[in-house]
Amino acid sequence: MQGILDRVASIAPLDSGAMEQARARQQQLTKPAGSLGRLEDIAVQIAGITRQPLPGIERKAVIVMAGDHGVASEGVSAYPSVVTAQMVYNFLRGGAAINALANYIGAKVTVVDVGVAAEISHPDLLVRKVAFGTANIALGPAMTRAQMMEAIQAGIDVFDAQLDQGIDLVATGDMGIGNTTASSAITAALLQTPVALVTGRGTGINDEQLAHKVQVIEKALERNAPNPQDPFDVLMKVGGFEIAGLVGVIVAAASRRVPVVIDGFISGAAALIAVELNPLIRDYLLAGHAAQERGQRLILERLVLTPLLYLDLRLGEGTGAVLAMSIIEAALHTHREMATFEEAGVSTREEE
Amino acid sequence: MQGILDRVASIAPLDSGAMEQARARQQQLTKPAGSLGRLEDIAVQIAGITRQPLPGIERKAVIVMAGDHGVASEGVSAYPSVVTAQMVYNFLRGGAAINALANYIGAKVTVVDVGVAAEISHPDLLVRKVAFGTANIALGPAMTRAQMMEAIQAGIDVFDAQLDQGIDLVATGDMGIGNTTASSAITAALLQTPVALVTGRGTGINDEQLAHKVQVIEKALERNAPNPQDPFDVLMKVGGFEIAGLVGVIVAAASRRVPVVIDGFISGAAALIAVELNPLIRDYLLAGHAAQERGQRLILERLVLTPLLYLDLRLGEGTGAVLAMSIIEAALHTHREMATFEEAGVSTREEE
Repeated sequence: MQGILDRVASIAPLDSGAMEQARARQQQLTKPAGSLGRLEDIAVQIAGITRQPLPGIERKAVIVMAGDHGVASEGVSAYPSVVTAQMVYNFLRGGAAINALANYIGAKVTVVDVGVAAEISHPDLLVRKVAFGTANIALGPAMTRAQMMEAIQAGIDVFDAQLDQGIDLVATGDMGIGNTTASSAITAALLQTPVALVTGRGTGINDEQLAHKVQVIEKALERNAPNPQDPFDVLMKVGGFEIAGLVGVIVAAASRRVPVVIDGFISGAAALIAVELNPLIRDYLLAGHAAQERGQRLILERLVLTPLLYLDLRLGEGTGAVLAMSIIEAALHTHREMATFEEAGVSTREEE
Repeated sequence: MQGILDRVASIAPLDSGAMEQARARQQQLTKPAGSLGRLEDIAVQIAGITRQPLPGIERKAVIVMAGDHGVASEGVSAYPSVVTAQMVYNFLRGGAAINALANYIGAKVTVVDVGVAAEISHPDLLVRKVAFGTANIALGPAMTRAQMMEAIQAGIDVFDAQLDQGIDLVATGDMGIGNTTASSAITAALLQTPVALVTGRGTGINDEQLAHKVQVIEKALERNAPNPQDPFDVLMKVGGFEIAGLVGVIVAAASRRVPVVIDGFISGAAALIAVELNPLIRDYLLAGHAAQERGQRLILERLVLTPLLYLDLRLGEGTGAVLAMSIIEAALHTHREMATFEEAGVSTREEE
């Protein structure tokens, strides 16, 4: 517990000097000022995160946290809970979307069982199982405080192990049938927003099932009464193990000055909790993409983050975050490789 | 002339059989149907273009057409015409944004002088110079019909030479001080839209200069009276050599069933002309990004194309198109590499 709080407290602001140097360089590159749009912002932000005016990215990773949700028994998802473990095996065998995308971009995929409701055995799986799924939030708290801290610590440890092997950019991913329900509950609690405004169709439920999902979440919030001023209380009462694990990854990465690309709604809920714990974390985040879950938009508005991609993805796993890594890498390539006006002998507009 | 018309007429529809096979595969991959959003659409479209249900991309290229504009003497741009040649040298030395992005994605950069107002000599430059810049459209037609056909043919020839070396995906790029003015004129003429609605700040002019730019374009359209029913007439009277060259690239690529990623406003104007020549061309196009020039949005609406990226770019050169290549490649990776539900032993929702 104290270790986690110390880690949260250790996070420092971005390096304004490195950002200023990066901004100055962008003004000198052979293009009209500002014409590379968000690519310029990315370069400046990553300069500030890494303290490097000319940052580069060599090693990339996506950490996929998997966990089950007791609330799935309420019929809130289009798929049964058994799919969580099946998809974990699919990740481990390399057959899922996240594998194909990580393979394309050259990112390492790390899969963590932080609370899947089945025994999973595979040499490449990191097992940090806190329990066989959370308790049903419609009936009581998702987890105990000790379980929550264990799941957050798992995320910190997994990130730290990656860092030991070298990592320049990390993406957050998730797998867990029922986890849009938990994410909607977290979002409604922390943003103090009506449940219906932050609840969507997840993997694809119909209108009737959506209305039921909203009712289940309303019941969970009523039953648990999470304190909106206390992100730990919200996470413990209506969250999920994989969400807690992602909070740990985000906290750990920010504390080690590694930029974090967050994926969609589930990662967004984890980011929301992390930023509530320490607002400085926000500056270490890049929003990979605009998810189809409406709650994600409200989270990003609160965090003042703009998605890098708008591709109508609604898969999770870290897919949108890993896809966005190509934009981030491309931004740093322009920042590093382009010639300045002076080097290239190109007239600036002042010479007209 | 007849060669160009034959090429335009030779363009065939997409292969609906290959698209159907690609769609069926997408339904079987281990993800909720539709959850990869636009990545799924890309895979299906490229299957239709290439006639391959499982298409792959190995060789990528961006063709950057450069030309000058007589109308630049009217003071419509933030930069002087001399910058066109300076930037062409920058491309050839590898110092521009397009070089950094193409280097990142592994695309070959081909630079073509189709009408720069300076002698440029470099071993890697393709010289197909039609003239030293167009005539001033505020005073008369930009070019003769013979010049236009020469520029279009240059684009066709350059693409065909690339194809001989092997090419699976081509991006269109441009360089030419004054070419947003020509593109606005083309767009206003073909869409029969008020000039002010399709005219923007280019590389960065102020309010007063923008008002002047609108007046210059209105004068050009009045003076030349291009026939909105005749895309060749519009291109010849108010276009540019690099735009004509890009029309050639687009026509040639579509006729050889190679997908084309169009960049921003200038490429969009070329695409608009190409699709007016043969509406089947539209299905061979992918819109790389949403440019900052307002005219581009109207072009994409007319072409019923949605940008892949929204990154506030306003540079041209093909930067947005090359950046989007990573999304297209990633889409094909998921399409090819993901396991099916059967292969992975994952439950489908029907088994609930």
